[in-house]
Amino acid sequence: MTTVQRRLNDVDIETVGSLVAAIQADSDKAQTVWSSTVIWKGGFASEARSREFDPTPSDEPVSLGGEDTASNPVEQLLGALGNCLAVGYAANATVAGIELRDVRIELEGDLDLHTFLGLTDGHAGFSGIRARVYIESDADRGALAALHQKVTGTSPVGHTLTRAIPVEVTLA
Amino acid sequence: MTTVQRRLNDVDIETVGSLVAAIQADSDKAQTVWSSTVIWKGGFASEARSREFDPTPSDEPVSLGGEDTASNPVEQLLGALGNCLAVGYAANATVAGIELRDVRIELEGDLDLHTFLGLTDGHAGFSGIRARVYIESDADRGALAALHQKVTGTSPVGHTLTRAIPVEVTLA
Repeated sequence: MTTVQRRLNDVDIETVGSLVAAIQADSDKAQTVWSSTVIWKGGFASEARSREFDPTPSDEPVSLGGEDTASNPVEQLLGALGNCLAVGYAANATVAGIELRDVRIELEGDLDLHTFLGLTDGHAGFSGIRARVYIESDADRGALAALHQKVTGTSPVGHTLTRAIPVEVTLA
Repeated sequence: MTTVQRRLNDVDIETVGSLVAAIQADSDKAQTVWSSTVIWKGGFASEARSREFDPTPSDEPVSLGGEDTASNPVEQLLGALGNCLAVGYAANATVAGIELRDVRIELEGDLDLHTFLGLTDGHAGFSGIRARVYIESDADRGALAALHQKVTGTSPVGHTLTRAIPVEVTLA
């Protein structure tokens, strides 16, 4: 019989197990809606707020007409992907009984400014994103490779980026 | 002759004009690379850092096994989209000579947790995102509708979400 540690990687795996059981009993519990409110602060500065947490400030570099007071939206998008992958490693490592000492994820994205600046029509966004994951763990390479495959196969932000999803922006 | 105000909506439009001119003279200047580094902090907590700015903390709600100390990655993704749209409104309104008093963007995304939790294969990400934009301005409805169309047609984060882009995640 396999005994799963109650707490590994500071993850309380029983809570996740309870959610899984609740969803298995009632599939509707898996349908979630997330939200954010963004307030423009003048210039290219704004802030995004979710629930009761401190807002995430946003700005653009001086070269793009901003005042460079905060990371810009495309950097935040990369950060959201990296934070999502980090949750995935922590969750799936814990389920697999793998202890993680450190996880660091370096992300990069390529962006052609022509469309954003109105110089051409076409794709204004990232043409591609690369993430490199550095894991410190005593687990063997095979276990880490399996973990990696699991994480990339179940990442909410990763999947949102690799699939074309409907984004409906309406003017109130 | 049309005179463009040098400063409207706190946007320095001449700086943006200089970048446009530089890119028109040398197309390679439009090729940009953006980056973020994510550090896992234990449990489902992590933080994303771009350049010298304060890191963006991330966590999950208690119901998802986190300690609920910060917004989660999918909320951050919505925030990045809203912050990107805010830049778009500010930039394009300024070019069009439209003064903005306030811009607020309410974003929502639908997410089925089954795949993230390993209960089914398939799409782990948002199935759809809705953003509602509230603008206070004396500009007429037609001008705001044209502005809106311009913004959604040139949004880097918006386009990244509505197109399937390659995301390569490798284990170092």
